[in-house]
Amino acid sequence: MTSSPAHDISRRAFGMTVLGTGLASLAWTRTASARQAGPPRVDGARINARMAELRRYGGTPAGGTHRLGYSDEDKQARVVVAGWMREAGLEPVTDVAGNLIGRRAGTDASLKPLLFGSHVDSVPDGGNYDGPVGLLAAIEVAHTLRTRGIALRHPIEVTLWANEEGGLSGSRAVSGQFEASELSRATASGKTVEEGIRFLGGDPRRLAEARRAPGSIAGYLELHIEQGGRLEAERVDIGIVEGIVGIRRWDVTITGFANHAGATPMDRRQDAMLAAARFIDMVNRVVRARPGRQVGTVGRIEARPGAPNVIAGTVTCSLELRDLDEGVTTALFQDISREAVRIGEATGTTFAYADIHRTVPAPSDPQMRALIETSAKALGLSTKVMPSGAGHDAQAMARLGPMGMIFIPSVGGISHSPKEFSHPEDITRGADVLLGAVLAADAAR
Amino acid sequence: MTSSPAHDISRRAFGMTVLGTGLASLAWTRTASARQAGPPRVDGARINARMAELRRYGGTPAGGTHRLGYSDEDKQARVVVAGWMREAGLEPVTDVAGNLIGRRAGTDASLKPLLFGSHVDSVPDGGNYDGPVGLLAAIEVAHTLRTRGIALRHPIEVTLWANEEGGLSGSRAVSGQFEASELSRATASGKTVEEGIRFLGGDPRRLAEARRAPGSIAGYLELHIEQGGRLEAERVDIGIVEGIVGIRRWDVTITGFANHAGATPMDRRQDAMLAAARFIDMVNRVVRARPGRQVGTVGRIEARPGAPNVIAGTVTCSLELRDLDEGVTTALFQDISREAVRIGEATGTTFAYADIHRTVPAPSDPQMRALIETSAKALGLSTKVMPSGAGHDAQAMARLGPMGMIFIPSVGGISHSPKEFSHPEDITRGADVLLGAVLAADAAR
Repeated sequence: MTSSPAHDISRRAFGMTVLGTGLASLAWTRTASARQAGPPRVDGARINARMAELRRYGGTPAGGTHRLGYSDEDKQARVVVAGWMREAGLEPVTDVAGNLIGRRAGTDASLKPLLFGSHVDSVPDGGNYDGPVGLLAAIEVAHTLRTRGIALRHPIEVTLWANEEGGLSGSRAVSGQFEASELSRATASGKTVEEGIRFLGGDPRRLAEARRAPGSIAGYLELHIEQGGRLEAERVDIGIVEGIVGIRRWDVTITGFANHAGATPMDRRQDAMLAAARFIDMVNRVVRARPGRQVGTVGRIEARPGAPNVIAGTVTCSLELRDLDEGVTTALFQDISREAVRIGEATGTTFAYADIHRTVPAPSDPQMRALIETSAKALGLSTKVMPSGAGHDAQAMARLGPMGMIFIPSVGGISHSPKEFSHPEDITRGADVLLGAVLAADAAR
Repeated sequence: MTSSPAHDISRRAFGMTVLGTGLASLAWTRTASARQAGPPRVDGARINARMAELRRYGGTPAGGTHRLGYSDEDKQARVVVAGWMREAGLEPVTDVAGNLIGRRAGTDASLKPLLFGSHVDSVPDGGNYDGPVGLLAAIEVAHTLRTRGIALRHPIEVTLWANEEGGLSGSRAVSGQFEASELSRATASGKTVEEGIRFLGGDPRRLAEARRAPGSIAGYLELHIEQGGRLEAERVDIGIVEGIVGIRRWDVTITGFANHAGATPMDRRQDAMLAAARFIDMVNRVVRARPGRQVGTVGRIEARPGAPNVIAGTVTCSLELRDLDEGVTTALFQDISREAVRIGEATGTTFAYADIHRTVPAPSDPQMRALIETSAKALGLSTKVMPSGAGHDAQAMARLGPMGMIFIPSVGGISHSPKEFSHPEDITRGADVLLGAVLAADAAR
């Protein structure tokens, strides 16, 4: 208890009961500070106005956002965000990894911090929603707590993670997964990661100081757009993420024999392009043949010498497999590489694979899922438990403590595109669910 | 008749009889100037030594040649070639299109010139044989005529065509097919065609002066490596080209929808890469389904945005079809575009085609084929009538007069590669066949 009468409102207002099913029930009661019926609500108009304001930093004529991690636009946006954090009663600090963290003390100094946030950097020529929705909602949750005089037991930290799109650099520095060798890697901004961290006010030499130990946080919550089309198609309000899929990525090199496209008869070719074509079609078939929600993609391809009048001697392409179960991606890769041998035999080519990327699946915390479910239900919203096919900072945070993620619908399932769109009312609903989940997590843990 | 006793040797030495089948028979008789039995022979050692010497200009550590049209190496090689022309009794002149032409007068001033030659420029990181074999053989034929004191009735012109690999620029300027708009086109050398022509000593402003009228030449003969593997596989010494295939080339644009490779389920994708893969496989199947020697190739591909974690929204690729009969390529394209519609329907993508290149088939002259056949048979060499799948300067010359082309085997059918190789004895045989054909053409026309 502190001298401020607001500080203990949350404890009085929320009673958490863990049911036999493992689900938690949030019992809402009126208090002097929250006079309206039902759970407290965020100011949706403010979030959505700020969504528009953020577009001043990297908004494109095409209607999207080009705000690469470590770019000038990224840095400018963070200055504005820091101001919003202060308005929300948070004390913004840039850590050595370039993350911008807005802190507020809790009423119980013995408790670990509760983190929630997202990012503001975008892919090249990306959309306006991937990242900002979650970050602005997180700030709005803190703002609502302040406006309504709701104190939390836990310290809270609203996190703007640095360079999410460029490889979760900021959150992985905090989780201890960031490798020193990554510092020299070029990013889309033109800066190396090291230069980018310094540009944002971090200190790459002291990166180890950003690291936190597993078990050192009370929990992490993140609101994000779905980036797929399931919620919209099934008319569900809120997605409860059961986990973030693991990703395996390979560079596939197909070697045939470059030769003259006019002088080489069809039956004497070793055409790496033909072999690549059959490979890409086969990957699609193998991935779809198995029941489940796994995905497989070939998104990058290069043929050499790459002339219309020369049979390709070499083709390199990417292969990416994602699933919540690493056993599934392993089995898929075995099937794919086995079938590729046959394609090679038929086309006079060989296949080689270089393992270039692997992230392990990050399951969310069952109690966090229950808190989100309860929060949504209290607001009268429908929910669906689903995997996240995309990577998020939440997967790094899952290493440090219980993680929960909330999805809102993406119209048409479009993301990483100027056409990315989520309805303002869905953003507000998502922020309300986040607020309820934060309050419940504060009460529960 | 002229004052030189050598001048009428060829007329006495060769008697041409056109048979009822349309084939010509070359009757060889001994003369005072050609004492050995059988047809006169070139100095094969000299050709092959010069093949090696030419590698001083653009020879690569990989064992091939990088001598781009209009490059420094190209220009340097031409200086040496001009010297060899002079040794062969030819007077080298650079025309306004940058072609290097070695002339020798004939005994009959009323006759049109007989042309034979090839090129010395290469594709990037190409081989040593594509071009030089034919040019050095042509010079060697002239050298042999001089050494043996053989006069020809026709003026002869040994032609080094400029920028063959970059689009037959020199020979097409002479045939009148070169368009003024091509002058500004960039070439692999880094120079525009206009800059390149000037660099070689031509004059792009006076290009029309290079042009010759149809019917203005007695004939054109070219020796070249096959660039395919048929002659070697079938153990045939000499290919008699029945024509140079027509080429049709398209840019194919496949439009799907770029989306997140993790968040977009397999059944909700409009994957332009998958559609491209099925297209490439289908092109191969359609081209091979029809009997004949037509070829179809997809050698270039670009996927956008081209990231491993983004479903391709757009793929552009090349499509090239070649055949001696334009009706065949037209029918193939109809089949391909019809099947592509179905691929588009199945993958949620659309196909669009931009017609970017067309050369019409260039049949060789039946009498020229007969002369080559007779020349080869007189040397005891086996022959095979075959199309040229590759384009050659000969196709431009076919517009001006009777054209004939001679192929020698390419080991493994490899071309446009450092591994391109033809046996020295095959080069010598080809030059001997060219010599016999030149002598016979001189006698016949």
